[in-house]
This record gives sequence, structure tokens and C-alpha cells, in this order.
Amino acid sequence: MLVDGVPRRTIVGRPGAGTVEILDQSRLPHEVAWLTLSTPDDARRAIASMQVRGAPLIGVTAAYGLALAAGDDASDAALLGAADTLAHTRPTAVNLRWALDRMLDDLLPAPPGIRGTLAWELAARLADADVEACLALGRHGLALLDALEPPGGRALSVLTHCNAGWLATVDRGTALAPVYAAVERAAVDRAAGARDARGVQVWVSETRPRNQGLLTAWELAQQGVPHTLVADNAAGHLIRRGLVDAVLVGADRIAANGDVANKIGTYLKALACADAGIPCYVLAPLSTIDPACPDGDAIPIEERPGDEVRVVHGREVVTVGTVGTAEPGAADGRPASVRLVDAGTPVGNPAFDVTPARLVTALVTEVGAAPASREGVARLLAGTGREAAPSRST
Amino acid sequence: MLVDGVPRRTIVGRPGAGTVEILDQSRLPHEVAWLTLSTPDDARRAIASMQVRGAPLIGVTAAYGLALAAGDDASDAALLGAADTLAHTRPTAVNLRWALDRMLDDLLPAPPGIRGTLAWELAARLADADVEACLALGRHGLALLDALEPPGGRALSVLTHCNAGWLATVDRGTALAPVYAAVERAAVDRAAGARDARGVQVWVSETRPRNQGLLTAWELAQQGVPHTLVADNAAGHLIRRGLVDAVLVGADRIAANGDVANKIGTYLKALACADAGIPCYVLAPLSTIDPACPDGDAIPIEERPGDEVRVVHGREVVTVGTVGTAEPGAADGRPASVRLVDAGTPVGNPAFDVTPARLVTALVTEVGAAPASREGVARLLAGTGREAAPSRST
Repeated sequence: MLVDGVPRRTIVGRPGAGTVEILDQSRLPHEVAWLTLSTPDDARRAIASMQVRGAPLIGVTAAYGLALAAGDDASDAALLGAADTLAHTRPTAVNLRWALDRMLDDLLPAPPGIRGTLAWELAARLADADVEACLALGRHGLALLDALEPPGGRALSVLTHCNAGWLATVDRGTALAPVYAAVERAAVDRAAGARDARGVQVWVSETRPRNQGLLTAWELAQQGVPHTLVADNAAGHLIRRGLVDAVLVGADRIAANGDVANKIGTYLKALACADAGIPCYVLAPLSTIDPACPDGDAIPIEERPGDEVRVVHGREVVTVGTVGTAEPGAADGRPASVRLVDAGTPVGNPAFDVTPARLVTALVTEVGAAPASREGVARLLAGTGREAAPSRST
Repeated sequence: MLVDGVPRRTIVGRPGAGTVEILDQSRLPHEVAWLTLSTPDDARRAIASMQVRGAPLIGVTAAYGLALAAGDDASDAALLGAADTLAHTRPTAVNLRWALDRMLDDLLPAPPGIRGTLAWELAARLADADVEACLALGRHGLALLDALEPPGGRALSVLTHCNAGWLATVDRGTALAPVYAAVERAAVDRAAGARDARGVQVWVSETRPRNQGLLTAWELAQQGVPHTLVADNAAGHLIRRGLVDAVLVGADRIAANGDVANKIGTYLKALACADAGIPCYVLAPLSTIDPACPDGDAIPIEERPGDEVRVVHGREVVTVGTVGTAEPGAADGRPASVRLVDAGTPVGNPAFDVTPARLVTALVTEVGAAPASREGVARLLAGTGREAAPSRST
């Protein structure tokens, strides 16, 4: 997608240089900074510190981390050790483990002499496959959006949580892929003279504590997509007042029964959808499904540092004082942080929650949509050679 | 309640000096600053800019605003004009209008010559009545908490949203009044040698965009009550995992059918309570009930400035850089603000939402608890001379 008008991916391997270039998401939207990873430890740190984030992108970054490792030492022991280290950077997103397993499946049978080169090719293939999957997700999701009928003839309005846009993937995004598909189709329609090309507007949930909603607002602005940022608390009100036609979210892990682990706060939005009778769609590549995980209660929920809640990052506002007096136009201050509460204030910071399958209208993957149920998940996985774990209760 | 160990109220009238002293809540928790209001316009500004906030405290501040006005000009026209200006500072909380009506009911029949003195007495009486009401709320709420049985013998654990503590009132608070009652009883029990004095711990929802949860964390810390601050998004997860026994919230307006307008985000927490089968209690004085308002849809929802979402206030963190690297111990930086997104980013900022009566386990007032229903509200109002509006649907 576009950054300052130039098409970019979030991650690019440079096999010749033995480096990987990433967009540093811990600095967005306050700074656009590209970072070069040269060692497997750089890749580990990029994932752990959330310089890259989003389940699909974490997987691809781990794959490139293994390519960086293979350049140093391509022995079985070294590759298994590097994969193990990378796999333990973040516990919830299953795409990480999935991508490392795909890499090892192909690398370990190969002669050590070619593993270094092969690893770069495999990682690039995973990156390209992610883009293809997101494009397909966009098509399948758009078909679902086309079935919605906004009241009173207003533009289609969706709400998303966290960032499940192109920044969470290599390109195109998961939850936002149908939005980009809709916007591009409308542009084509308008160019062809259509006067009723159907627009779409996005409510962006801020997503405390890490504020990944700011990433979503930034990437939507970069693509020229109409959007409105709101506090996480506002979602219920907007949905109840009929201002949202569907909630679109990504996923960090989908259990065999259709339960969905995603960014903390997703569950609350799904509850509001059910209460108002609007759809809650979960969009994710098949790699997000964990057939070995019987249900949501079996998904480990990462507890992150309390300072993610205590300290907020942005740009310096020169005018200090009473709330509400900050000067507009002060967006050009230097990056700065403020502490909301002192380090001694007890803080809880679970990074994900589980939305039970009953609250998910459909799971949308690159092979199509299916109900969030044991049967639906089995249907999505059919033919992939991955099979669901037996139900815990049986 | 205590501020640095000294018992204080949030607002104190000084009739001799013709001034009103308030704790400036727009600077809390980063600075403890007391402010002197000398004119009705000072009172208007204090309410509008949220130097005072919380429905009960807004009402008492408006009453003192009228006392300040009566000192200048106690004519009918002047008092009605001042009341009208004060009533329009904030649209949602009904206690504001209620307090002004009580003042005018008693002032206008009085001879103009004594109105100046009378107004101070009436405002002080409303302030004292608020404290009495909160003490009674605490007793009735505590009886409900005593009926709860935390699993596994852990301490009773409640979750609250926004600040409905003593800072939202003159003293004691609404939603937090039962917590303070429980803590004080446990202290007495322990002093008497009881080994199983029942403790209570409070999950504090941050409450973006204005972060009134920080006020709650601050006032709980000042009273020595165990608490844990979490992002608003975490409430659903905590409730679903069985870590919360009840949600306690205040209210800005209660409609005749039991629908509750309260701080944006309350509705989402009530949904999570219903899904998990734990109680959601709304605690408020009778002055929060608006019998003229048939249901929640009739309650005006204040849309506040977008910069409340765009700009965050705290204390300067000296170490700037990657997320998560802020130094602990940097709590002593000067008050500072950061801009999350530039002023051009479209923002929605509804300040309240409506929780339908069906999601409220009980309304708790100074005269006791009742179901959140037309019948329950009528029972609470019986004998107050205020009667409910007919249902819209009949």
C-alpha cells in the first residue's frame, strides 16, 4: 500500500545484502522510519518490541529471522535453536509457530550447503503467499459487505479494532482488505462514470494501551479512505445508535471450535454486535487457525508490561496546561511520551481476549467464509492437511 | 476523603469571602491544585471545562454558582438568567438542572434582600445532602456486595468505570461508596481482632478519552484501597475469566424506564456482565433520576471536542524513544501533553452512552435498591413528589 504516495510492503528481504528491511511500527504514526535487520536477534527484538506486529506479519518476520540465522549457521541444531527462540517472542499469535514450522519442514530435509539460499527463497515465498491470501480475503469479505444495507442511504460504515490493515501483514491487510477492495472498485466505477459508486467509511477504535488504532487511521489516511477515530469506549454507543453496519477484525489465533483470540477489546465489540444484530466478521489467513487448540480457553493470553498502560507516546504539545487547551497545529512537535500514572500504580495489561464462536458471524479466510464452529473450521481446513483437535468436552 | 492524609471535600463554600474552593480535577492526578471561584462565570467555566465533574458534584457546583450570582444581583431576572447559563454548561447530567431548580424553588419566593445569604445556605444544604445520600448509597450497596461470593476464597473484586468516587461528589462517592464502607468495616473488624475481615479490591477502567480512571486510581490510593488500573478494553476479558464479582458504576441520568446514561463505555461493561452472569449495579442519588425522560433514547448525548481524544495529558517522561523504554521513576516530570494524531484527523467523541435497563441488575439510591424498570423507578421516587413520565410507547 501507499506511504507518501509510494507503494510499499511492510517487510522486504534483501538476500544479496543478507538483511531485512522493515517499517518500524513502534514509531508510527509519529515517525515513518525504516529499519534494517541484520541478525536473527534483530528479528527477535523486532517482534518482541512490536516494531513489527500483527499475526501474519509476525509470521513472515520470523521466517526472515530464520533466513538470517541460516546465513550464520545452517546446521539442524542452529536452525532449531533459532526457531525456538523466535517462537517464544510472543505467545498468542499462532502464525509465528506456523511460519517457522513451514520453514523447518522445507529446510531440514535440504543439504546444509543450500539452506542459506533456500531460506531466503522460502521466506520470500511466505511473504508473497501472505499478500495473495490477503487479496483473496478482500474479495471474500467484499462479497459479505455487498450484502449489507446501510439505513437511510448513508455510505457503508464499518468499525475495526486494533490494526488488521496492511501494517499487520505484508500488504493489503486482513480486516481492512475488503475495505481497500471496496474503495478500489468504487474508484473504478466512478472512473467509468457511475454516479452511485458505493463508498465506505471506517470507524477506527483507538485500541489502548498500544493505540494500534492510530496505525489504522494513518494507513487509511495514506490510502485516502474516509475514517473517524474514536476511543475504544465509543464502539458500543455507535453500534447501538445504528451508525455501524459491521465490525471487521483480524485474529491472532482461531481455535478448532471457532473461538477467536484477538486484540484485547474485541470481545466487547462482538457483544455489542450481537446485542444490536449486526455482523461481526473475523478475517484471517488459514495460518491463524490452530487446529491443535480445542477452544479459546486453551489459548495463552500474553500479559504485557504495565508501562504500556502507564506511558503514552505521541508528539510534544508545546502548550501545556488545562485539558482542552492544546493548540491545533502542534502536530509537528518532536516525538515525546507522557506518564499517566507513576510506576508504582498497579496495572493489568492482558494483550488479547477471546471472543467465543457464538459471537462471531463468520470466519473469512483466503478460501472463503465459514461459520465460526467446529464444522466451519473443519471445512476451511479441508485439503490443507491440518486437522482439528477433538473437542475437549468429548 | 483523604488527600495526603487530610480529610477534604471536593467543594467548599466560603460565604464570608464570597468564594467557592474546588479541587481542580482537570489537573489530577498529575497535580493537586485547589482553585477559588469568585464569580458565576468561574463556576460556569469550572463545569464546562471539567475542573469539576461527576453528576452530583456538577449539581452542587451549579448551586454555588447561583450563590455567587445572587451576591451580585439577586433579582428574579438575574437569578433566572444565571441558572439558565449554568444549566447549559453540560447537557447530559440531569443533577445540574435538578440542583438549580431546587435553588430557584426556595430563592424566588424569598424577599430579594435575604436571597444573597439564603443562597449560600441552600447551596451548603445541597452539599450536605449529597454527602448524606452518598453515605446511604454506601450502606445499601454494601448489603448487595455482602451477598456476593467470590470464587476460590479470593478477596471480593469489583470493577468500576470512570470516576464515581468522592471526586464525583462532595464526599464519599456513589459507585465507590460501598467500597469505602467495606474497607472501613474491615478495618474496624481487624482492629477488633477478626482474622477473616473481608477485603475488597477494585479494577479501575482507565476511561478514555478523559482518563477519569486515573482519578479513581488516585483517590483509591489516597485512601489505601487495593486497586489495579486497566485499559478500558480489558474489562470484558477480566469479567469473562471470573476475576470480577460485580461492576459498580455511577450515572449521569436515569430515565423513567430505568435506562441509564453514564460515561461512554458503560454499556460495553454491562454487556459483559450480562454475558458472564455477574451483577451490574448503578449507584446514584435520586437527583440523577429524570422522571420527565421516558427512556434512554430521549437523553441528549454530549459530543465533546475531538482534541480530548487527540491529545493526552500526563507528566513528562525524560527518556524518549521506542515504546516500552520509558524509565520507571520518571513520575516527577512536569505536567505535559502529547498529541496522538494531528488536528486534521477526524475524531468522534461522544461522552456518554445509554445502558438499557435490561442490562442493569439494580439501581441503588439513598432510599435503597430497586429493579431498573418503570416500576422500580416509580418505587424509588415514591414520596419525593416527582413522578415518572408516561411510557413513549403507550
